[in-house]
Amino acid sequence: MASLRVLDSLFFPKSVAVVGASANPSGWGGSSFLTDLIKRGYAGKVFPVNPKAQVISGLTCYPDVKSIPEAPDLVIIAIPAPGVPQVLRDCIARGAKNVHIFTSGFSETGEEEGRKLDLEITDIIQNSDLRVVGPNCMGIWVPASKLTYWGDQPRGEGDLSIISQSGGHGEFLTQYAQQLGIYFSKVISFGNASGLQAVDFLEYFETDPATKKIACYFEGMKNGGKFTQLIKSINKTKPVFVWKSGLTPSGSRAVSSHTGSMAGEEKVWKAFYAQSGAVPVNSLEEIADMALAFQYLKPATGRRVLLLGGGGGNSVALADICSREGLDVPRLSENTRLELNKFIRLAGNSVRNPVDAWSAQDTPDIFNKTLEITVNDLNIDVAIIDRLVWNQPDKKEKFDQVNDYLIEFITKYRSTKPIIISLSGINSSLDSVKTRTELLKKLTMSGVAAYPSTLSAARALSKFIAYHEFMAKQ
Amino acid sequence: MASLRVLDSLFFPKSVAVVGASANPSGWGGSSFLTDLIKRGYAGKVFPVNPKAQVISGLTCYPDVKSIPEAPDLVIIAIPAPGVPQVLRDCIARGAKNVHIFTSGFSETGEEEGRKLDLEITDIIQNSDLRVVGPNCMGIWVPASKLTYWGDQPRGEGDLSIISQSGGHGEFLTQYAQQLGIYFSKVISFGNASGLQAVDFLEYFETDPATKKIACYFEGMKNGGKFTQLIKSINKTKPVFVWKSGLTPSGSRAVSSHTGSMAGEEKVWKAFYAQSGAVPVNSLEEIADMALAFQYLKPATGRRVLLLGGGGGNSVALADICSREGLDVPRLSENTRLELNKFIRLAGNSVRNPVDAWSAQDTPDIFNKTLEITVNDLNIDVAIIDRLVWNQPDKKEKFDQVNDYLIEFITKYRSTKPIIISLSGINSSLDSVKTRTELLKKLTMSGVAAYPSTLSAARALSKFIAYHEFMAKQ
Repeated sequence: MASLRVLDSLFFPKSVAVVGASANPSGWGGSSFLTDLIKRGYAGKVFPVNPKAQVISGLTCYPDVKSIPEAPDLVIIAIPAPGVPQVLRDCIARGAKNVHIFTSGFSETGEEEGRKLDLEITDIIQNSDLRVVGPNCMGIWVPASKLTYWGDQPRGEGDLSIISQSGGHGEFLTQYAQQLGIYFSKVISFGNASGLQAVDFLEYFETDPATKKIACYFEGMKNGGKFTQLIKSINKTKPVFVWKSGLTPSGSRAVSSHTGSMAGEEKVWKAFYAQSGAVPVNSLEEIADMALAFQYLKPATGRRVLLLGGGGGNSVALADICSREGLDVPRLSENTRLELNKFIRLAGNSVRNPVDAWSAQDTPDIFNKTLEITVNDLNIDVAIIDRLVWNQPDKKEKFDQVNDYLIEFITKYRSTKPIIISLSGINSSLDSVKTRTELLKKLTMSGVAAYPSTLSAARALSKFIAYHEFMAKQ
Repeated sequence: MASLRVLDSLFFPKSVAVVGASANPSGWGGSSFLTDLIKRGYAGKVFPVNPKAQVISGLTCYPDVKSIPEAPDLVIIAIPAPGVPQVLRDCIARGAKNVHIFTSGFSETGEEEGRKLDLEITDIIQNSDLRVVGPNCMGIWVPASKLTYWGDQPRGEGDLSIISQSGGHGEFLTQYAQQLGIYFSKVISFGNASGLQAVDFLEYFETDPATKKIACYFEGMKNGGKFTQLIKSINKTKPVFVWKSGLTPSGSRAVSSHTGSMAGEEKVWKAFYAQSGAVPVNSLEEIADMALAFQYLKPATGRRVLLLGGGGGNSVALADICSREGLDVPRLSENTRLELNKFIRLAGNSVRNPVDAWSAQDTPDIFNKTLEITVNDLNIDVAIIDRLVWNQPDKKEKFDQVNDYLIEFITKYRSTKPIIISLSGINSSLDSVKTRTELLKKLTMSGVAAYPSTLSAARALSKFIAYHEFMAKQ
């Protein structure tokens, strides 16, 4: 059983050996892991392992794992596949607790040699107490323990943990999410999953106080029944977002080439979502979108949405998008319409829903009044405030004022109604793109669930509501 | 009948009167139209009409349309709705040929007063030879005649013409598209469509030599049968992209508030697409995406796509997306795999399809060889080359070299196979966003069909192929 105690030595190792470390600082593989551990200030002991070197980066180098003077908590293996079985045997002999096999070249190659090696390492692992992450993966990244991963990982610590069969996905997601104020507790890339399984990590997360939300990327799945029960249980207190890839014919073939997994059948996974209440996602952006929703919104079970934006055609597009995502855009109450009509003229605007008050977009006074009146309408459960971003340098100051007011307003209403912001508009000039990027960052960093498009906003909101609807029925 | 000759005076008027012009240069409405005509260098005569002024912007101002010394080709009406019927009567009396009613405040308000005014102007129009665009719309924009529209419209002339019931959509699309090298012949915003109908404009475009592609945004439709036949006929030589909005319950209500249209039923529109072969689109971005495909790709009827990218998880995602969009990502031939294996190692890569040659992404030599071999595989009809954009300042030079080679390669293969580029990666740092924006612009401006995401690329390609499949069956 992978209890908290057991996997602690994986996430917070007191010592790390890097097999395949080399003196070449630009080398891909072992030297990157070693360099990153040192660069980030990992506080435990580090043992480079390479029979061809005496010292690497100022650290004593060992010819093999058996020669290391103490049993390492974690061994990272980054040498070509044929050498991996022997290193595993050495790890067992030395009493190492955890192994991360970075090395690729096993079943995922589809070649006879890779499959044979896979059988060999699986056999070694199964007959030992060794806990193995991988092979064919980036391994473990834990900001709190300065444990390495690759690339430019954000340093902040947060409460989202990730289990991913793709290292690239983990890396791209963490880089993307940090710009939106989303930080991580533990990020696991576990590739072919010949050793530790998704359920092992999930069991740890279930009782891990640092993990409050969980995102998963799976290409295949073993222990399906246990997995479903576990997610169902965890999901009640820690929302779980699950991206299952490879459920299309072409995707299934790609999965086999990537992690050598069996992608499984769509109907099986549909049943999993229906039983567990896990939030289905289909991209990295969606994981970040869901994290924002659960980070900042009060629970909601109603689907009647207020759409406040600008532009007639744009309003129709927003309403269509919400409807397609399962949200309702109802008429506002008669009283709300009468109140709005006092300061929004009928011609060229609409005080129905979507509220298309063009002038309000860049007129703080009108915007503030419109927001206050519409958000409080009793026909409304949740609100999407759409900010149309386009090139209007002369209106920038007022545009910014409206955004500042929005942050203040949403903060004030945090415990009243879920309110999110979407950015619409498609201008692709550098200025516009810069404005969008900076605005999205500013909003999310200020504690607002803000989305780069109306589609992503509506989809995230709908899935957020679906989660709470599911929980209400339990 | 709206023959070429008849609507010529609308698109290329020799004189324009602006009713509601004022001396206030920042005024919304008539003064904007007048200012834009002057600013853009419209070559015909311009007659401001306003009973309260003698001279506006140095031009003699007339108290009403009847007082203008000659019959204007086009009258733009930008005064409050109650005054519009009288101006229409004046236009008839003066023998004006075309009218654009900018004014809002008719049926779309849902109020009794607006509906009455609508009946009144419809009655006037139907009993006259006046050709009326609108009301409640931005009117006509024709770069070749410097005819006005609002905002920062691109000046270049192209072969895409637009009919849109939303002025905002027309404006945003033209601004977005110019960044991608897409230019326009005629852009029509016709709002409530009380006068000229979509079919009138379509008849003009059918024989208009300057129009080679047509994009439509409709909220409602009159003359459905004639419309379908007309599109079916035009679509054979000039692809028609049709965005029909308001087909959801919430969207339908929004349509009624925007242009007072009846949105219609989804099944009716499904039948329209099936009969006419028109390309269904659902956003402005998609219109630009389709324009790029038809601008740069040779016709294709095969759905077997080569996916060349980088990253294991990313490759699975690309394959899933293509599959969902109706494309097939088949295995490459044995010979191709053997050729690729000569210089791409198996571990950590895949020479199946998607071809996940991580090292090739930033290594010009490997990339070029990989491209040449895979594009020529006989199992492949079309290709999506995925460029993963992320923060790698040290690899920028090689990244750019690969992009330059791609442009050269695609240009050389233009008549051999349709090859498009998609940008993947989700880094949201300003640097990454800037790189994406500039790369997309560079590629499209160089004559490459390039797309901001794999989803948009796969969707555009699939619809492009569907168009040619439909035509092959006719």
